[in-house]
Amino acid sequence: MPRNMAVVILRVPHDCFKLSDQEYGGNMKKKKWLLHRVSLLVSIVVLMVSLVSSATAGEHDPLPSWNDGIVKQAVVDFVQRVTDKNNRDFVPSDRRIAVFDNDGTLWSEKPLYFEIFFVFDQIRALAPAHPEWKTQQPYKDILENNLKGLATFDEYSLMKVVMGIHQGKTTDEFDMIVRNWIDTARHPHLKRPYTDLVYQPMLEVLRYLRDRGFKTFIASGGNTDFMRPWVTKAYGIPPEQVVGSSSQIKYELRHGIPVLIRLPNIHFIDDGEGKPVGIHKFIGRRPLVAFGNSDGDLPMLQWTAAGEGARLMLIVHHTDAEREWAYDRDSFVGRLNKGLDEADKRGWLIIDMKRDWKVIYPFQLPKQTSR
Amino acid sequence: MPRNMAVVILRVPHDCFKLSDQEYGGNMKKKKWLLHRVSLLVSIVVLMVSLVSSATAGEHDPLPSWNDGIVKQAVVDFVQRVTDKNNRDFVPSDRRIAVFDNDGTLWSEKPLYFEIFFVFDQIRALAPAHPEWKTQQPYKDILENNLKGLATFDEYSLMKVVMGIHQGKTTDEFDMIVRNWIDTARHPHLKRPYTDLVYQPMLEVLRYLRDRGFKTFIASGGNTDFMRPWVTKAYGIPPEQVVGSSSQIKYELRHGIPVLIRLPNIHFIDDGEGKPVGIHKFIGRRPLVAFGNSDGDLPMLQWTAAGEGARLMLIVHHTDAEREWAYDRDSFVGRLNKGLDEADKRGWLIIDMKRDWKVIYPFQLPKQTSR
Repeated sequence: MPRNMAVVILRVPHDCFKLSDQEYGGNMKKKKWLLHRVSLLVSIVVLMVSLVSSATAGEHDPLPSWNDGIVKQAVVDFVQRVTDKNNRDFVPSDRRIAVFDNDGTLWSEKPLYFEIFFVFDQIRALAPAHPEWKTQQPYKDILENNLKGLATFDEYSLMKVVMGIHQGKTTDEFDMIVRNWIDTARHPHLKRPYTDLVYQPMLEVLRYLRDRGFKTFIASGGNTDFMRPWVTKAYGIPPEQVVGSSSQIKYELRHGIPVLIRLPNIHFIDDGEGKPVGIHKFIGRRPLVAFGNSDGDLPMLQWTAAGEGARLMLIVHHTDAEREWAYDRDSFVGRLNKGLDEADKRGWLIIDMKRDWKVIYPFQLPKQTSR
Repeated sequence: MPRNMAVVILRVPHDCFKLSDQEYGGNMKKKKWLLHRVSLLVSIVVLMVSLVSSATAGEHDPLPSWNDGIVKQAVVDFVQRVTDKNNRDFVPSDRRIAVFDNDGTLWSEKPLYFEIFFVFDQIRALAPAHPEWKTQQPYKDILENNLKGLATFDEYSLMKVVMGIHQGKTTDEFDMIVRNWIDTARHPHLKRPYTDLVYQPMLEVLRYLRDRGFKTFIASGGNTDFMRPWVTKAYGIPPEQVVGSSSQIKYELRHGIPVLIRLPNIHFIDDGEGKPVGIHKFIGRRPLVAFGNSDGDLPMLQWTAAGEGARLMLIVHHTDAEREWAYDRDSFVGRLNKGLDEADKRGWLIIDMKRDWKVIYPFQLPKQTSR
């Protein structure tokens, strides 16, 4: 919007001068009207100038936390091409869809997906009422904090536990539980709220794309009901733009009051080959841009890449053991094996965290440039 | 946006006059700068005036195809209350969610849901390759156009036929089939394209709500893949704001090219008690406003009504046998029985088509007022 305003201002026709000169010759009444009008215009121009200057500031470097290099340049080039009406890669704004994996792409995912910590915390809180968990797996390993044992369970078994948590609770109750957890829980190593551990460079990409007319979506293996309560504050993404896994849900009247009840059964797993399916079900359009970080994102990246016209596929490669974590081919969480080969073969962009990102988390920004 | 501009203009401080007077006393260079500036401002004011006047025109009567009466008044009152920051019912724009059933609420649904005609047309086209359909139900009745016989099948059986159509086709192929059908098919009685049979008064409600910061969603029992190709042109609703029924979908690589394949199994039925579930799954928030027309919309209306704060629930009552169709309690398609009782009991608004709507379809508008 501010950019359009700038265009209007730059295109002011010069013969407007004559009109203005004529107006000066009027009588008092006319002069008063003119003064009124000038005062009005002055205040509008102040508004305009502030809009234009903020737009220009954004244009100067939309990605200040990214080091200059091929990745940053490729992102900016792509956005400029698809948003420039005179470019053959131009795409109208109503088709500018960008999808982002969440765990390991928008925030950290180590030592385990943060949603797993949420579930563990809930299981610990509920354990007194479930003595059978002391001997029943994977609850036993969870309660004993045996991450090594947990690593032997397949994703589906863990997902079932995740989905089973708070079965019988209403969606409103679950929403409150998530909100309370996200406000109070702390990362086991970094001792910070989990929402502190979002990637500052990715926040800038999200904002940059939205400023250029993109709709930004999350496409995550995580549970939609776990993500929706906090993604708007964390990423500026509204709840309805979150594609994720879900349990079955049932509508019923409880004492005459309509409620939605969470059931323990899985309804949809939005991971791996489920990601393009989820994107089709929720969004109904093929993305122009996809960001992922693991083999679970590979089908989403392939599906995006196979669209006609310009597309942008990026993989966040966790290469920074010092500032974040370093892992790829053999990792239990966020395994990136086939994805690296495919990216090499197809020429997708690989974000090298250590090389490409000036800072990792927003709290590491120097105070004065904090956005 | 235009309304905010109007506020800026109305709040121009009067002491701006002095600043302007001082500026007139400058030298030539200064005068040239001033003229530049005035010319710039003049063009901006033209822009502003056009914005403001269009906003004012919209404010004059946002619902011109509605007859004055309790329903129209209630809609306008509600919108004014929830969008007025000084009103205790104010709701921030990011929570202004409005959901609309499609069949019988946004477009006609007689003599059968239009999607059923789509399926029938596909079955007829595919029949030569399926000789078994000549004896197999409900295909036999469909091919023989035996609507009476079809009325004996339950919704689930018909839904299975709907979902089964074009199984094995890719989502892109299905999209093209729907686009082709919607462009060429004609309503059996009215001999018009189906998208001519959208309700003009509802188009005005959709636009009015969006102009006031609402996000408008479809929540329909219809198949999302059937609706998404044409709803943007028909209603101004983007594909990702369509909540509907869906079949299972599978991702695969066909000769190395990623495709999404339609499977015959039902994944989700977004009707009746499925509607609030679908709204939760897709949107993740309880609507402020819900429009429906049949008992299949009752749970959606109940779920909306049970939210805190101001909510608006409306039922389109088909009372106009002359200009559209008249039906409610015993209708096979669009049955409205419990919904009428519940609306009476709860004080929900009932739109009496005959009484409340000046015109039904956009093509009935007088040419000069066509919007």
